[in-house]
Amino acid sequence: MKSVSCLPYVRATLLVAALAFGTSPLAQTDPLPSWNDGAAKKAIVEFVHSTTTQGSPKFVPPAERIATFDQDGTLWVEHPIYAQVMYCLDRVPAIVKAKPELAKIEPFKTVMSGNREAIAKLSEADLLKIVAATLTGMSVEEFQAEVKKWVAEAKDPRWKRPYTELTYLPMQEVLKYLRANGYKTFIVTGGGQDFVRVYSEAVYGIPPEQVVGTAGGTKYGYDKTGKPFLTKEPKLLLNDDKAGKPEGIHLMIGRRPLAAFGNSDGDQQMLEYTKAGDGARLALLVLHDDAKREYAYGPANGLPATKVGAFTQALHDQARKQDWVVISMKNDWKRVFAFE
Amino acid sequence: MKSVSCLPYVRATLLVAALAFGTSPLAQTDPLPSWNDGAAKKAIVEFVHSTTTQGSPKFVPPAERIATFDQDGTLWVEHPIYAQVMYCLDRVPAIVKAKPELAKIEPFKTVMSGNREAIAKLSEADLLKIVAATLTGMSVEEFQAEVKKWVAEAKDPRWKRPYTELTYLPMQEVLKYLRANGYKTFIVTGGGQDFVRVYSEAVYGIPPEQVVGTAGGTKYGYDKTGKPFLTKEPKLLLNDDKAGKPEGIHLMIGRRPLAAFGNSDGDQQMLEYTKAGDGARLALLVLHDDAKREYAYGPANGLPATKVGAFTQALHDQARKQDWVVISMKNDWKRVFAFE
Repeated sequence: MKSVSCLPYVRATLLVAALAFGTSPLAQTDPLPSWNDGAAKKAIVEFVHSTTTQGSPKFVPPAERIATFDQDGTLWVEHPIYAQVMYCLDRVPAIVKAKPELAKIEPFKTVMSGNREAIAKLSEADLLKIVAATLTGMSVEEFQAEVKKWVAEAKDPRWKRPYTELTYLPMQEVLKYLRANGYKTFIVTGGGQDFVRVYSEAVYGIPPEQVVGTAGGTKYGYDKTGKPFLTKEPKLLLNDDKAGKPEGIHLMIGRRPLAAFGNSDGDQQMLEYTKAGDGARLALLVLHDDAKREYAYGPANGLPATKVGAFTQALHDQARKQDWVVISMKNDWKRVFAFE
Repeated sequence: MKSVSCLPYVRATLLVAALAFGTSPLAQTDPLPSWNDGAAKKAIVEFVHSTTTQGSPKFVPPAERIATFDQDGTLWVEHPIYAQVMYCLDRVPAIVKAKPELAKIEPFKTVMSGNREAIAKLSEADLLKIVAATLTGMSVEEFQAEVKKWVAEAKDPRWKRPYTELTYLPMQEVLKYLRANGYKTFIVTGGGQDFVRVYSEAVYGIPPEQVVGTAGGTKYGYDKTGKPFLTKEPKLLLNDDKAGKPEGIHLMIGRRPLAAFGNSDGDQQMLEYTKAGDGARLALLVLHDDAKREYAYGPANGLPATKVGAFTQALHDQARKQDWVVISMKNDWKRVFAFE
């Protein structure tokens, strides 16, 4: 009789566990299968559990569950060069074809030469000229069509795959896990807002209106037939990097995130702003320490400094001091990419 | 036997009708009970039906269902003065208390005099000075707390009720009806984004991140204890009125709405931009022609011109030409307010 009398208890336990993790017993399966057991995975699961379990002292109503993610280096590969910079460089021939006089002017001349070494040495001011020429002066629909085409065709030189396949599987799992628990997931990127919005829904399940990024102005006008359209202007509205990230979050979302994920000093302010809120807060940094499966870079942990993704020693110290979670790509991730 | 053999057909018909309107037979009840039968109600119901019925040539996937609403004069009363202007005027005594030197300087002197006639005559430049003094120079949390307090206490002089009760019941029904059919509803207001976001969720069921409005910049910094916070700056980022509305929609939402609701020439560009998209599009204007239950104003239809809500003759002509729906408050609305 003992086993029979235990049944209601076992059933209740299963039910409680199921409710804690989602809506059905199926949800009891590991929501983060590409993560190794460790402090990072534990922190994420405990945070979600404590903020979404009714009666928990850290419970947060669904409407307030906001999580923000940097993109480059946090959700997908940023090394050795941001995908969006590749887009801009790839667009230069078409720009020069439309305006042949640019072929003789720097930095377009260098880009047209195809000299990779010289291109890699272009200054930030040069890159800004290329950005202005390739990202503005067209209608928003024309821009979206160009990016869509590029995203479908361009390939990363190392993996010979579309950039959109170079998203980190463990982070895709975190996005889905948070959404399954009532969180609204946002991208908060230093990259171009209009650029990322073209593929964010297909690649991350994040709709355009939940992408905050560096944004330029647009100008409303009419074509010859009287049809209204918006032209992308070379006017910076939001530089969504460093202090610009919490400022952009306030502008575009209007409330402080509960959880924020980043990987560089461009994310410092977003993470400290998130952690400074009341109640349960989670701040995480992806450390690129896996030269074999991805890359190892960043001044922290003695890794080389690079143009992208500065995970500085100061950032590392702040993470320890303020109880941020550092995710070691090498140790915390069982798999890095879905195609592996 | 005939009646029995009809049963499956009747059941199937009921099921189809239920699916078309929502998820259960209960949803077959009128979704817009405060609307009189007429062209406006018909246009809204047919639009929702055609864009959400699988197999309809105008079907739109849920992710793309975006509807935008002006606030003042479209969702709640704007006459004779915008609620937010009342907020700014009401805040002046506290501002003057903190900075006594302002008591001798215009326009603060006039506001402090309490002379309603003189206050009503303040120029736009004067009002901007008051706006700058009452909406900036404080942390975003301080501002939110002030607005929350005011919203709970302030009352409209005509109805002696909180402003938040002066929302139009028929429009509240439209918001709910659209959301029940997979639409994401946004406010796109010329009013202050930070102001409207304080009460948008409680009053309209619209979360802060779905409020687009006139927006100033913020500045990230740290208090004495090192805790980060954002200060509201007197720097205009988005003037969300007229051409600024489609520009703001692109910045904050990133896609063209399927449906847009307005009531004045400040909404003209949002409505024409919406209607210029492909497929089914709906543009609607609320006409304030009900002096008894609300107000009658606006140059169209021979109504008096006022400082707020210019429903001009040109706008009226454009509405006819471009097949926008004009909602007559007097004829189309069975009830105006929930408290009636």
